[in-house]
Amino acid sequence: MPLSTDQQAEIDQARGEALTTRRAVAPALEEILYKAIPLLDHGFVRVIDYMGDDAAVVQAARVSYGRGTKKVSEDKGLINYLMRHRHTTPFEMCEIKYHVKLPIFVARQWIRHRTANVNEYSARYSILDNEFYMPKPEQLASQSANNRQGRDAVLTGKEAERVFDILKKDSELVYEHYMEMLNEGEAGTPLDPERSGLARELARMNLSLSFYTQWYWKTNLHNLMHFLSLRADAHAQYEIRVYADVMIDTMKRWTPICHDAFLEYRMGGAHLSKTGLAAIKRMIGGEKVDQKSSGLNPREWRELMNSLGIE
Amino acid sequence: MPLSTDQQAEIDQARGEALTTRRAVAPALEEILYKAIPLLDHGFVRVIDYMGDDAAVVQAARVSYGRGTKKVSEDKGLINYLMRHRHTTPFEMCEIKYHVKLPIFVARQWIRHRTANVNEYSARYSILDNEFYMPKPEQLASQSANNRQGRDAVLTGKEAERVFDILKKDSELVYEHYMEMLNEGEAGTPLDPERSGLARELARMNLSLSFYTQWYWKTNLHNLMHFLSLRADAHAQYEIRVYADVMIDTMKRWTPICHDAFLEYRMGGAHLSKTGLAAIKRMIGGEKVDQKSSGLNPREWRELMNSLGIE
Amino acid sequence: MPLSTDQQAEIDQARGEALTTRRAVAPALEEILYKAIPLLDHGFVRVIDYMGDDAAVVQAARVSYGRGTKKVSEDKGLINYLMRHRHTTPFEMCEIKYHVKLPIFVARQWIRHRTANVNEYSARYSILDNEFYMPKPEQLASQSANNRQGRDAVLTGKEAERVFDILKKDSELVYEHYMEMLNEGEAGTPLDPERSGLARELARMNLSLSFYTQWYWKTNLHNLMHFLSLRADAHAQYEIRVYADVMIDTMKRWTPICHDAFLEYRMGGAHLSKTGLAAIKRMIGGEKVDQKSSGLNPREWRELMNSLGIE
Amino acid sequence: MPLSTDQQAEIDQARGEALTTRRAVAPALEEILYKAIPLLDHGFVRVIDYMGDDAAVVQAARVSYGRGTKKVSEDKGLINYLMRHRHTTPFEMCEIKYHVKLPIFVARQWIRHRTANVNEYSARYSILDNEFYMPKPEQLASQSANNRQGRDAVLTGKEAERVFDILKKDSELVYEHYMEMLNEGEAGTPLDPERSGLARELARMNLSLSFYTQWYWKTNLHNLMHFLSLRADAHAQYEIRVYADVMIDTMKRWTPICHDAFLEYRMGGAHLSKTGLAAIKRMIGGEKVDQKSSGLNPREWRELMNSLGIE
Repeated sequence: MPLSTDQQAEIDQARGEALTTRRAVAPALEEILYKAIPLLDHGFVRVIDYMGDDAAVVQAARVSYGRGTKKVSEDKGLINYLMRHRHTTPFEMCEIKYHVKLPIFVARQWIRHRTANVNEYSARYSILDNEFYMPKPEQLASQSANNRQGRDAVLTGKEAERVFDILKKDSELVYEHYMEMLNEGEAGTPLDPERSGLARELARMNLSLSFYTQWYWKTNLHNLMHFLSLRADAHAQYEIRVYADVMIDTMKRWTPICHDAFLEYRMGGAHLSKTGLAAIKRMIGGEKVDQKSSGLNPREWRELMNSLGIE
Repeated sequence: MPLSTDQQAEIDQARGEALTTRRAVAPALEEILYKAIPLLDHGFVRVIDYMGDDAAVVQAARVSYGRGTKKVSEDKGLINYLMRHRHTTPFEMCEIKYHVKLPIFVARQWIRHRTANVNEYSARYSILDNEFYMPKPEQLASQSANNRQGRDAVLTGKEAERVFDILKKDSELVYEHYMEMLNEGEAGTPLDPERSGLARELARMNLSLSFYTQWYWKTNLHNLMHFLSLRADAHAQYEIRVYADVMIDTMKRWTPICHDAFLEYRMGGAHLSKTGLAAIKRMIGGEKVDQKSSGLNPREWRELMNSLGIE
Repeated sequence: MPLSTDQQAEIDQARGEALTTRRAVAPALEEILYKAIPLLDHGFVRVIDYMGDDAAVVQAARVSYGRGTKKVSEDKGLINYLMRHRHTTPFEMCEIKYHVKLPIFVARQWIRHRTANVNEYSARYSILDNEFYMPKPEQLASQSANNRQGRDAVLTGKEAERVFDILKKDSELVYEHYMEMLNEGEAGTPLDPERSGLARELARMNLSLSFYTQWYWKTNLHNLMHFLSLRADAHAQYEIRVYADVMIDTMKRWTPICHDAFLEYRMGGAHLSKTGLAAIKRMIGGEKVDQKSSGLNPREWRELMNSLGIE
Repeated sequence: MPLSTDQQAEIDQARGEALTTRRAVAPALEEILYKAIPLLDHGFVRVIDYMGDDAAVVQAARVSYGRGTKKVSEDKGLINYLMRHRHTTPFEMCEIKYHVKLPIFVARQWIRHRTANVNEYSARYSILDNEFYMPKPEQLASQSANNRQGRDAVLTGKEAERVFDILKKDSELVYEHYMEMLNEGEAGTPLDPERSGLARELARMNLSLSFYTQWYWKTNLHNLMHFLSLRADAHAQYEIRVYADVMIDTMKRWTPICHDAFLEYRMGGAHLSKTGLAAIKRMIGGEKVDQKSSGLNPREWRELMNSLGIE
């Protein structure tokens, strides 16, 4: 349950207001504006503002005086060209702002993308809610033996139970102690009127990385695509990937032509090395090439076959 | 005359369209949206898109679910506080996009502000118009004797005439030769059908820095204020200052509370040194302090007196 | 004890090597290069590389071919001028790289400074050490009643004991459970050879924000000063301030002239508002001004008096 | 002749000094440190400082205490892995600083790379030298008929002469008038002691974009590679490509392992689209695929064949 009744009421009120503007409007994105799209057990993503649309990319590329767009097919052709040839600046002319609720360990990965604007809920100033992330059973993966960053088979039975038990009990415990140190009781009354509470900026350090935080996160379309290409990738941690996946959907509502170009040229494409290209050329020429003769090391060969969808 | 009939028609058409949005709207800015505000002899500034308003700053500071604003007085108090204490991130949540036409030598100063998105009209790809900057007589200043970056008294009489004459004739000449090298005649026909034109990317280098270029320039409110504080400053070159001044007006229409805070705490304020503060303390205590006894060097002393408006 | 024997040996070895270079060298910084300066209970700061010195700032300002420096007094005058007039780009020409060990809640504040390069120890890839921050008794402050971000009087007696007890026991507990979920025993052997361990990227979320992480952090002198001016400020949280204080010392060894200018014009200076300057002018003129007649609100008046060191 | 005797003497003096450092040293780069590598007719590139080497990339990836490197083969394997998988942050840990002399129209392209530090010679403050770029005959290309950004066959005979003549005479003329407006004669004496000179910040606008400027330009290895991959590309304008080519050589001296990985995975590689990959898979499977049946448009097909080196 990511939202309280009050929060939902605030969102409904914001959604109720409609004003007139001369700016570009993305109707499909307006439909879901301010709405919280639930994620994981307590998280959400909300689009709370945006600037520009597909046409804004075209206008910027042409430095035009008016709408700058011609036929849809021409706009699409230009956007595809820009995407293919890494002319990134026109995509920077669109901007989007999200309100995101996410576990702290996810926030720590996310924040590494520096070219964005962020306002995070301050645990120095305010008290965090009692909400922490508990993985679903199908996400309770064991450590990969091959890949030190990866997950392997899912834990089951007693092992799974024990992990759930630890995660849940420890989170509850540290939160209870957090409130005790703060001397915070129900509805803002002190637990014990006789004593002072520990400073918030200190007490927070007892909370674990599974607790939820939230922030406003604003970026331009170019940087958004860079973020998505890394975080919707199969190598990204599941818990951040679900955010990226939902954000790709919001991008589709916002700039559908850019979205399609992004899937075609970035997400669905692959970067091949000089040696990889040479191996392909020989294969197309009818030569029988294997890892050894390709000049690639075993891992690179596997990655190349993977890119081509060849087993 | 900064705009052609076609350009004006495109702008009028864009202004004519009104759509409904759930986003925040800044009515006073909508009034002038897309309009070209003329500057210098051929330049302009046009606001062509924006995101957020004063309330968006408040929302971001509170990471709120709804509008996040309370009473206007509270919002104003919060914005003043943020401005005073350099809490800059909430101001990054508003974004604005300009279309600017400006002489190349001004563009070269402007571009040094890196935290912005830019799409410039490409002289590699297109042909620049025959428009160059000619200073007004009252701007034809002589080189300052004291300040190597500054201007002194205005040139007059024969000296002024000679400068005007040079600037005008040389600009006309290099443009004529630019078109000749391009082999470009009226309305896109070649001057001489028998010969090829020089590549645009080469021919452009014959143009002088007084020629106008144009770009889309997008930045957030925090970076805009940083730009304005440097470029609307008395030490900035006149030709960029006139742009900054007009942009401060657009900021007033967009985020009036931030605008007032900006004037009060940044443009109208001053940063004093440790020694400067100590000198002031003594003066307030009734002590007679002059440059020598202040511990400041003559230039610093002058700057301090200047900040305080004391002669 | 921030360093293991192995780590200390690695540092000693690095310090033992001396090579010849044509680059600028900062002798006082070389003295402490690679050394770990201990901080808090388990943290440290180590300077591990640098580029440039005071002269590099001068060279950049002059775009010179050689050393670019003249007399020390002239260099100092130029650096002071640059600092005073916010000519920030020459300071960007010096670069420094730190290795820092710090509690996660401090890292979360620190990372908000975006214009730096960071490589953090990955808890997705590796296992974190059993080291968590325990405040010293004199840092165990209560929540400020006036300032929601601040600290008040120090907790004592039973209250203090209880807080220590909670912080210590909870940290020990979550770490024990972290290792249990990972199925990690002594020296890399599994606790229980029969079961798989939970993926590292998941297990880490049971750790609390008091645990130490570490990173390489590299930035230029301009951005370093910006960081220091905010984080060595009295309003910064104590636990990050101690890092900033130590880094100011390293800056003194690196670029002593810039360091002095930084203290004089930034750390020791103050930014006054338009209304504040006007009030000061009246006071210097002999007028009796109090908060009401100053036009400042009570908080601003307090801040102004504070800046001037007047009670 | 890019350097005066005085400048060369300053460089020689800087090169003559050798100091001892504990920092990483790149011997092959030290060999050419400060030396001006000539480019075009009056330009140059000089490496004037650097931080880190190949090992610094490895250290950062491992967040190590000491040198962090193991066997050369392991370091190479790790660097290749990082390059292939877009783990860009370790490359940001190396920094390099250049002094570059370049025509203004090249500087205008270059400056669009924002993530760098720049100090440019100020024509507001100083007087520019009488040096302008004249293309060599083999660079005097005509405008491409197919590609609006490109060059076609080289101009010859009378056409070439006419272009040379224009470029040379116009440059000489605008410089002569620049000095006349400044009232600057030989060796800093006024041309006419009776009159004032025009302010430098105004007079400069009479100069054309072919004139040389110079700057200090500093960036990290990641951003350098991004710059080089775009500017050493066949689509980049010749006049900036020669700079990128020389800088790739300096990179080889600085970080030879990164250099090789850069050529293998970036410069020599290619990014293929989803449809492109599917077409290749079919071709490898023995299917006869042409542009029509590939699903690619003619231009994309041509680009794909080009990437594979197939005619």
